[in-house]
Amino acid sequence: MPRDFSEAYLYNFEDLKVGQTASMARTVSEADILAFAGVSGDTNPVHVDQEFAASTMFKGRIAHGMLSVSYISTVIGTKLPGPGTIYLSQSVKFKAPVRIGDTVLTRVTVTALEADKRRATLSTVCTVGDAEVTVGEAQILLPKR
Amino acid sequence: MPRDFSEAYLYNFEDLKVGQTASMARTVSEADILAFAGVSGDTNPVHVDQEFAASTMFKGRIAHGMLSVSYISTVIGTKLPGPGTIYLSQSVKFKAPVRIGDTVLTRVTVTALEADKRRATLSTVCTVGDAEVTVGEAQILLPKR
Amino acid sequence: MPRDFSEAYLYNFEDLKVGQTASMARTVSEADILAFAGVSGDTNPVHVDQEFAASTMFKGRIAHGMLSVSYISTVIGTKLPGPGTIYLSQSVKFKAPVRIGDTVLTRVTVTALEADKRRATLSTVCTVGDAEVTVGEAQILLPKR
Amino acid sequence: MPRDFSEAYLYNFEDLKVGQTASMARTVSEADILAFAGVSGDTNPVHVDQEFAASTMFKGRIAHGMLSVSYISTVIGTKLPGPGTIYLSQSVKFKAPVRIGDTVLTRVTVTALEADKRRATLSTVCTVGDAEVTVGEAQILLPKR
Repeated sequence: MPRDFSEAYLYNFEDLKVGQTASMARTVSEADILAFAGVSGDTNPVHVDQEFAASTMFKGRIAHGMLSVSYISTVIGTKLPGPGTIYLSQSVKFKAPVRIGDTVLTRVTVTALEADKRRATLSTVCTVGDAEVTVGEAQILLPKR
Repeated sequence: MPRDFSEAYLYNFEDLKVGQTASMARTVSEADILAFAGVSGDTNPVHVDQEFAASTMFKGRIAHGMLSVSYISTVIGTKLPGPGTIYLSQSVKFKAPVRIGDTVLTRVTVTALEADKRRATLSTVCTVGDAEVTVGEAQILLPKR
Repeated sequence: MPRDFSEAYLYNFEDLKVGQTASMARTVSEADILAFAGVSGDTNPVHVDQEFAASTMFKGRIAHGMLSVSYISTVIGTKLPGPGTIYLSQSVKFKAPVRIGDTVLTRVTVTALEADKRRATLSTVCTVGDAEVTVGEAQILLPKR
Repeated sequence: MPRDFSEAYLYNFEDLKVGQTASMARTVSEADILAFAGVSGDTNPVHVDQEFAASTMFKGRIAHGMLSVSYISTVIGTKLPGPGTIYLSQSVKFKAPVRIGDTVLTRVTVTALEADKRRATLSTVCTVGDAEVTVGEAQILLPKR
């Protein structure tokens, strides 16, 4: 019996509405920073060298900005709109550092829909407590299946 | 004797020139994709489920787009300008997928300098062979030390 | 502004119905087996020593049975019923080995509900193609929030 | 000279006795929980989101129950009876959560032997200090070599 892949899909383009939102949160650990350093090769000492990092304006190790950006992809690719989404573009501004122990809440909200192109624009915001750490915008495409 | 952190720094703002470039390349393995899925939480089946991925327009598993984006951060944070850089923003367009076994060449090139703000604009391009997979732009700040 | 944790929850006990089902699939890679060996400490040579494994009835390395069992927890803890579920018990029978490259489809189905105790029984089946590799049953509790 | 695989085996079925026991202990770190989340895909926020977890009855992050269950497999597959064992089934009841920093002692004890089928029943208990966190039973088969 062939697998029914349709159950992997969460939303069709027609299901999306402006204002729809989804989020996830993850507490950033030292292990996460080291895993991200390993997979990206980004061994900037501000991430992996506590003595160096303590000597900088950050006063200690900070997470890779791209770790927060990767969470945006997680929400888009697993929650809203989820599997089947084609990621067209992402812009991000880094507003504040994320430190070990911070819980990053990543929220994606539909801000515009172009029905003819099956495209959506999403605002993408990562916060730690009340502070925005990353703000940006994604463009995605949800093809007909 | 206290550590001399100055040796970690590669460039001062004054050392940067428009046209200056740096790159790195990495062959994307299945293990990289799974490590990225683990650290980001992005278990979109197009990355981790070969049967589902084969049923999509991609005809097989693809790497997370953000894996390539993380390589941009690696070049900026470790090569040009390297440690001490403050990452202000990044925009990316995803133009083509990266597959297991592809070698992603990530190149960063200085395109503009604003001396008064100590800011630089960098073009950021990831290629696999002759094909661009990700194109974008970064803004960075290089504070006085 | 305090975080609204209610959005993390997918189902209340009252939302569950007998027959309700959820699944996920993951292609098991060599990297997964090594990661599982690392985190569990289970370095049984049938998982990590290709020469030894080839000498056994399995004719090559196989995944840890508990890797498939961990997928059951993933479906229960992230999809049905998802966050907030209290895992009471799990039984599994291992019926066939999982090999590198196999895509394991893990399906959880509600088979019984005890409203007074807010308990549910779930059938938990992992398949590779048409073959069952693991079959079992979970008991879970979904407390009032 | 071909490798002598016989040295990998610890016990023949005939060596097993009711009451025989083996154990291992491991201190669960935040990194273990994140590694387990990565390999299983189980990113239930009770494991990876400290703020969410603090809002639950657990008052903080807990380890995946299946991490303790994986330790049972480790003792069976590497100590008693060790390599060559065919895992037939496992049942577990989850009695208490495991937290970051807890040392989980996993003990396996032979409780019954069926010589004609070369099968053994094992009690499998994970404790943290004096508290049982997981109790269960395994059935295994030890084929003639």
